[in-house]
Amino acid sequence: MGMESNFQMKVETGDAGYVLEDVPHLTDYIPDLTTYPNPLRFNPAYSVVKQYFVHVNDTVPQKVVVHKNGPRGIHFRRAGPRQKVYFNSDEVHACIVTCGGLCPGINTVIRELVCSLYHMYGVNKVLGIDGGYRGFYSKNTIPLTPKVVNDIHKRGGTILGTSRGGHDTSKIVDCIQDRGINQVYIIGGDGTQKGAAVIYEEVRRRGLKVAVVGIPKTIDNDIPVIDRSFGFDTAVEEAQRAINAAHVEAESAENGVGVVKLMGRYCGFIAMYATLANRDVDCCLIPESPFYLEGNGGLLEFIEKRLKESGHMVIVIAEGAGQELLSESLQATNEQDASGNKQLQDVGLWISQRIRDHFARQCKMSITLKYIDPTYMIRAIPSNASDNVYCTLLAQSAVHGAMAGYTGYTSGLVNGRQTYIPFNRIIERQNKVVITDRMWARLLSSTNQPSFLDSKDLIEFKKAEETPTQQLDGESCKEDKPGN
Amino acid sequence: MGMESNFQMKVETGDAGYVLEDVPHLTDYIPDLTTYPNPLRFNPAYSVVKQYFVHVNDTVPQKVVVHKNGPRGIHFRRAGPRQKVYFNSDEVHACIVTCGGLCPGINTVIRELVCSLYHMYGVNKVLGIDGGYRGFYSKNTIPLTPKVVNDIHKRGGTILGTSRGGHDTSKIVDCIQDRGINQVYIIGGDGTQKGAAVIYEEVRRRGLKVAVVGIPKTIDNDIPVIDRSFGFDTAVEEAQRAINAAHVEAESAENGVGVVKLMGRYCGFIAMYATLANRDVDCCLIPESPFYLEGNGGLLEFIEKRLKESGHMVIVIAEGAGQELLSESLQATNEQDASGNKQLQDVGLWISQRIRDHFARQCKMSITLKYIDPTYMIRAIPSNASDNVYCTLLAQSAVHGAMAGYTGYTSGLVNGRQTYIPFNRIIERQNKVVITDRMWARLLSSTNQPSFLDSKDLIEFKKAEETPTQQLDGESCKEDKPGN
Amino acid sequence: MGMESNFQMKVETGDAGYVLEDVPHLTDYIPDLTTYPNPLRFNPAYSVVKQYFVHVNDTVPQKVVVHKNGPRGIHFRRAGPRQKVYFNSDEVHACIVTCGGLCPGINTVIRELVCSLYHMYGVNKVLGIDGGYRGFYSKNTIPLTPKVVNDIHKRGGTILGTSRGGHDTSKIVDCIQDRGINQVYIIGGDGTQKGAAVIYEEVRRRGLKVAVVGIPKTIDNDIPVIDRSFGFDTAVEEAQRAINAAHVEAESAENGVGVVKLMGRYCGFIAMYATLANRDVDCCLIPESPFYLEGNGGLLEFIEKRLKESGHMVIVIAEGAGQELLSESLQATNEQDASGNKQLQDVGLWISQRIRDHFARQCKMSITLKYIDPTYMIRAIPSNASDNVYCTLLAQSAVHGAMAGYTGYTSGLVNGRQTYIPFNRIIERQNKVVITDRMWARLLSSTNQPSFLDSKDLIEFKKAEETPTQQLDGESCKEDKPGN
Amino acid sequence: MGMESNFQMKVETGDAGYVLEDVPHLTDYIPDLTTYPNPLRFNPAYSVVKQYFVHVNDTVPQKVVVHKNGPRGIHFRRAGPRQKVYFNSDEVHACIVTCGGLCPGINTVIRELVCSLYHMYGVNKVLGIDGGYRGFYSKNTIPLTPKVVNDIHKRGGTILGTSRGGHDTSKIVDCIQDRGINQVYIIGGDGTQKGAAVIYEEVRRRGLKVAVVGIPKTIDNDIPVIDRSFGFDTAVEEAQRAINAAHVEAESAENGVGVVKLMGRYCGFIAMYATLANRDVDCCLIPESPFYLEGNGGLLEFIEKRLKESGHMVIVIAEGAGQELLSESLQATNEQDASGNKQLQDVGLWISQRIRDHFARQCKMSITLKYIDPTYMIRAIPSNASDNVYCTLLAQSAVHGAMAGYTGYTSGLVNGRQTYIPFNRIIERQNKVVITDRMWARLLSSTNQPSFLDSKDLIEFKKAEETPTQQLDGESCKEDKPGN
Repeated sequence: MGMESNFQMKVETGDAGYVLEDVPHLTDYIPDLTTYPNPLRFNPAYSVVKQYFVHVNDTVPQKVVVHKNGPRGIHFRRAGPRQKVYFNSDEVHACIVTCGGLCPGINTVIRELVCSLYHMYGVNKVLGIDGGYRGFYSKNTIPLTPKVVNDIHKRGGTILGTSRGGHDTSKIVDCIQDRGINQVYIIGGDGTQKGAAVIYEEVRRRGLKVAVVGIPKTIDNDIPVIDRSFGFDTAVEEAQRAINAAHVEAESAENGVGVVKLMGRYCGFIAMYATLANRDVDCCLIPESPFYLEGNGGLLEFIEKRLKESGHMVIVIAEGAGQELLSESLQATNEQDASGNKQLQDVGLWISQRIRDHFARQCKMSITLKYIDPTYMIRAIPSNASDNVYCTLLAQSAVHGAMAGYTGYTSGLVNGRQTYIPFNRIIERQNKVVITDRMWARLLSSTNQPSFLDSKDLIEFKKAEETPTQQLDGESCKEDKPGN
Repeated sequence: MGMESNFQMKVETGDAGYVLEDVPHLTDYIPDLTTYPNPLRFNPAYSVVKQYFVHVNDTVPQKVVVHKNGPRGIHFRRAGPRQKVYFNSDEVHACIVTCGGLCPGINTVIRELVCSLYHMYGVNKVLGIDGGYRGFYSKNTIPLTPKVVNDIHKRGGTILGTSRGGHDTSKIVDCIQDRGINQVYIIGGDGTQKGAAVIYEEVRRRGLKVAVVGIPKTIDNDIPVIDRSFGFDTAVEEAQRAINAAHVEAESAENGVGVVKLMGRYCGFIAMYATLANRDVDCCLIPESPFYLEGNGGLLEFIEKRLKESGHMVIVIAEGAGQELLSESLQATNEQDASGNKQLQDVGLWISQRIRDHFARQCKMSITLKYIDPTYMIRAIPSNASDNVYCTLLAQSAVHGAMAGYTGYTSGLVNGRQTYIPFNRIIERQNKVVITDRMWARLLSSTNQPSFLDSKDLIEFKKAEETPTQQLDGESCKEDKPGN
Repeated sequence: MGMESNFQMKVETGDAGYVLEDVPHLTDYIPDLTTYPNPLRFNPAYSVVKQYFVHVNDTVPQKVVVHKNGPRGIHFRRAGPRQKVYFNSDEVHACIVTCGGLCPGINTVIRELVCSLYHMYGVNKVLGIDGGYRGFYSKNTIPLTPKVVNDIHKRGGTILGTSRGGHDTSKIVDCIQDRGINQVYIIGGDGTQKGAAVIYEEVRRRGLKVAVVGIPKTIDNDIPVIDRSFGFDTAVEEAQRAINAAHVEAESAENGVGVVKLMGRYCGFIAMYATLANRDVDCCLIPESPFYLEGNGGLLEFIEKRLKESGHMVIVIAEGAGQELLSESLQATNEQDASGNKQLQDVGLWISQRIRDHFARQCKMSITLKYIDPTYMIRAIPSNASDNVYCTLLAQSAVHGAMAGYTGYTSGLVNGRQTYIPFNRIIERQNKVVITDRMWARLLSSTNQPSFLDSKDLIEFKKAEETPTQQLDGESCKEDKPGN
Repeated sequence: MGMESNFQMKVETGDAGYVLEDVPHLTDYIPDLTTYPNPLRFNPAYSVVKQYFVHVNDTVPQKVVVHKNGPRGIHFRRAGPRQKVYFNSDEVHACIVTCGGLCPGINTVIRELVCSLYHMYGVNKVLGIDGGYRGFYSKNTIPLTPKVVNDIHKRGGTILGTSRGGHDTSKIVDCIQDRGINQVYIIGGDGTQKGAAVIYEEVRRRGLKVAVVGIPKTIDNDIPVIDRSFGFDTAVEEAQRAINAAHVEAESAENGVGVVKLMGRYCGFIAMYATLANRDVDCCLIPESPFYLEGNGGLLEFIEKRLKESGHMVIVIAEGAGQELLSESLQATNEQDASGNKQLQDVGLWISQRIRDHFARQCKMSITLKYIDPTYMIRAIPSNASDNVYCTLLAQSAVHGAMAGYTGYTSGLVNGRQTYIPFNRIIERQNKVVITDRMWARLLSSTNQPSFLDSKDLIEFKKAEETPTQQLDGESCKEDKPGN
């Protein structure tokens, strides 16, 4: 049972096909670090707890659908407090930065990072970096105390401000060094986690005793490995309002069509779950499932059919759906925005216009189409109770890891357990709806929409997804997780 | 690697300590049953899906915190559609019954059972049993079609009506036989699941081709093995309103005390999660953690202290907390209600009175106490989006299992996957908050309340919980699951 | 004290400048109609009521700010049940039609019309006309009973469907005659009320015993005379969500600008009240108050200033604001939509683009602008409690009037009392925010925005509004009415 | 046309029966006060306004249902800014106190008093009195600035704290004098307004230049003259949740009975409006309408009947309903609480027990009763948009009046206009539901409940209410006001 290591992760193997993809540790490149007993030992709240500290060997499997004598597969290190810590409370100087778009729960994560550091580990030097990555070098910082953050979880947004892009690794690490910061908590999506990975490498190259910790934030749920991203639950809940409104508008008009655009640049999780949670959606379009408008089996034909049957119709479309159609039709140059996301045209406005045009041309059917884009109304709300608890545990896990000397990891929920995941596992690809899987089949079954795939597409799709999974049941594991 | 079986479950073992606790199957006692190809093969919605049918060997581990070379432990059979089914669509005659108290999501489960049977398996004979178990023999039934149930998930409660008790096994099975029912879906809490187990045994004794399926419903989350019960998420969310109101009332008065009673006869999950999701609670009292009122380290002393510090205070108390104190003080005879639940006095009214009395006697401190009991306002709301998706998958899993000939099982979520769990595993004990675990430590840390345990209690507690778990990390697995 | 009459209203004068603008009555053109005692006399619910029937002389003043010896001014007839009715219960054949855009509360009005006719007057022939005015001749009708409408007030939209335009008076009156309809309830905005006035005239010309009753529906509150339109309260409440989201988005970005477009084609009531109810809006733009973008004192300058001061900014803009700027900039031809409303370009998208362009050109300030259009999410929700009560009384008043033989009137709330208002008073002009009044001054004071008027504008404005009012304090009466 | 005056009000008469009940003015007892031009003249926000200042003769009639040649009746002085003020900005030292129970909107009133004084009149000395009347002499004060109050309208409760009783007039006026306070804003219910009247008299007796202003706060709407009290709308809205929950619980059980207790010690407005806004209530019980339980025509008989008809039932009961039955049954001594309110037993618990006992005794009908008391959950929420606007105008009116030298008045909405009402008019009696009026008839008609009055009661009732009204249509004016 060997063990191999690189900058990004340490792989350890065991019996019966067991693999542990472990995260880096400060001692990997700084030998002889002093350790201290975990201050939680002296916390009265923990006096009742039998096994408060996580066992050094605790790991969590990535897959939980297994066969009797099948291989055990990849595991991640379980998150939680350790017996020994590598920072003295007085020595810690933490900072928190939030990057990218808004998402319900960011303020709760900030609050709980500050409170965990303060109440659990006696740390009172915590800085907020204002305005995303570029805030490291261009803006003032905000001192964060339990009092400052006391009520922030009741508000949407981020009290630290956020921005896209602005990632000059060298200047960021200079700033970390200049200010004497030794724990960096980075809240952001996949671009941000890539940035965190680079910062971690530069920190390691310079040999600094600085823990670099990622906390995955993506309202789209497009980060792989983890069960779901925080704020996702709240977003799906809030999306119901928009769908309900679209349904009412559609029902109240002759041949009423309600179109709702939901978040999801590269993946359709919000659209899919929001559709499944509601029961009035007739068609759900996501980036992972190509579709076409005209002709036999196309979307426009389906709309005609559904309007004839029931007199109205509700369409949910993820913002990244149908991009290739949109590009063709607009011959848009693919501009990049500051963070490297493709600047997408508004697919909701576009498809609404195409549908209107189609029926206006036809004349035989006059429709009334209402388009709703609730994006910012969803992003900006405070997190619900479920996400609040999630954010709390996520923040606590992140802090326990850094105190225990781990670095270069993202804190994340895997099969219902908090774990530490090596950066490269998070950033190597995006989480996507697997349309050859059962969850999507359930959706198709619930909306009774066509698959918009011809048999050639189908074969290609099935092939395409054969390769990356290579596992017994692959992504289909994900399918059963309602609340994750 | 042997295999043993009894009425209630079939145990199968494998390499590396792997154990499968499998559910009964109709063929266990009726040999030579005809099988049919699953009609889902011909469903266009499933044409895109690569591996739609669950592999015959798919299982899900009960524990997901594992050690490199540790034993694999107990597993359950994964839920989902099978290649072959044991019922012809025309032959199926299903019935649905709902028992016990209300819980958000019951109507969604009913809706999805009906729609799954109808749309997936072409079943159109589904009966609703009116008014709980006793409805089998004393009330009319309600024919259920997709049209009848179309909008019911938008309403709280249960359209079938419910009641407690009324369980005359023999009359129920007579009725099942008389009406030619061959699939029985039973939605209810642990008492109800016990009833289902007995019905299953009687059905088996009579040799009937009838699948008996339990769907666990308990707003308290007191059912073991499963991740969480449906409606729990919605309940925790809705409880926030009551806690917020208590906080406002407490803050607006001099020495204001807000007391909120939440559901939880024997376990404090709702109280614990509602407290963690909120951040304004000063004290959370649950059945699992004993407390005392008077004297050093008692609750009243803590209230005094907190009022002096911050001028107000919010207490959340689960309905089953402090029952022994209540019994003493009232010398109440422990009456049983119809379903066998101990008839509990209202602990919220009682503790409010005790607190008022204490401060009235003292005179040195005049307090204003407001008591809020939101129980029925929480139970009666429709399920939120997250619970809606959960209920959908739960109902679909239940139907897939019955069609595939399984019986005597409860459909449930284990580590984020739908599984079939033998009845005896569900009813052998209740799920409880483990107060020597980390989740409770987190709560104590968040409220800064004392543990109300003296060292003698503590030792006993730790000992008491040593025995049943016998596992590496025991119940502590549960601790990290925010959204489950 | 004379009295004069025409098709549209009957004017009666009295002491001290008292004027009654009375509504037409069937007996004005059909003499010798039979009367019947009001069936409410036999309703047990009314047995306790002393003065249930409205006194024949009850009237309500249009103005309630008066001077000691000033003239009493214009009055309207008070709504309510009369001692005698002009229809026998069995003889009544009523129909209900809903026209124009959605508005919270339409279903409540429909429900209460049906229930009032049925429960109060024993009428059981009520038809719903499907799909607006054109439904009279092109679509099927829907029989309406208390059972059919029992739960519809819990849903947004209109169960009757709606459309714009489609007003062929002659065909409509033919249909009324053919079907033997003798009470027509028309729910719609000012275009619809104009249509109702024409229908009434045609009915009168033909000498039919048909009562034509308008019920004003306009989410914009643009109907004159009445205190407020139903659904307005609900709309202002729901608009808070969008403004709050815009505020969160703006606060979380550097130089964040949140733009919210609210309903209001020709008047800014929703924008004004939503701004006043919230406290985070920096600028409110309405159709009644012209503004300009560029240069000294312009909007762009104000945005720069506000961003420099506080780092973020929220703008609320009514959909009809800045139309002249928009037309210039787009050189758009003023197309008319089917109902005769000017087809407006989306001012929210336009102004967002202009602001983005301005700051992009400038380079010295990089802004992040988020645009929210909650229109359909507001229109489609069910009415709140306050609007529910309002809709109930409005519907009851409408029914009492028709039964009592009145016709050619709109039922409406004037100074908190239900009244009957002659059609011509409703349709002669639109209700608008008077920007030289105190309510607008309050808004300016609350946002601290400039008036965007130069002194020349100002003089003109004051002059322009001198003429139509001609009253002591004119429209300024309206200013104090928060809840109306 | 004479004029008479006393401590409490000045009566002025005019033509056609016009009566003005005017409020006191500082110059009534302090001659030769200096006046200053209103600083609003220099406020840019007001530069656009034509007739910003209220005309000196503007008055508002109490009744707006009038007859052609009938008397004009009682009027009140219209609120609003005056050309001249009697305080220099620098000289003003204001204080705000909140007394009695919570009500949505108190914080909004506090916020707008502070902001109006500051932004409109340049006043920056505003003190908050902590903890109600007794806070004047026993607690610290809280300096209030626009910054301190900026976000408080988003929270329920009162940031100043509140208490009942504690009214030592002499000590309060001493404190006012000692601190140099010259504007006192008192937010509270009828007991509090009585206190304000006594403070005003003492201030006048001492000849102090101190304006004493009442702002009526009563969630019950029991204050006479004014259209409605702030927070009432929000309370009726929030009550819907409890009624809906009761309905779901009742519907889901066999013979389910849902009982909801709502606020209303002496009047049933909340119960009545909440019942009218909802449509699922079967019986509404209020203090003004006596009822009896047993026997023919009693409540228990009605419950039996309704359960037999529809299988379930929802009862809404105001907290002060059935007090005489309750007293008899409990032989309770009528204790007084600190503010002089009769200490009421919980009628909801009592009636629930009586109903349960009745059906338990009967045996022929087994019922399931659920009791919901949402009181504190309603009181503690923030005000909705409509109440926010109302509170804003109320606070501004209060400030304009004090600055203009008026004193001894309550600021209140009369027929949709802000007015100044002499204290004695507010405190001389309580506003009550007039059960011989049409609004109550509407309620009876909507619930189809019996009147629970025998003919003897009826005659007495009608007689009893003959006397005080003495007007054409008396209280019945109130009946049509939905949103007021």
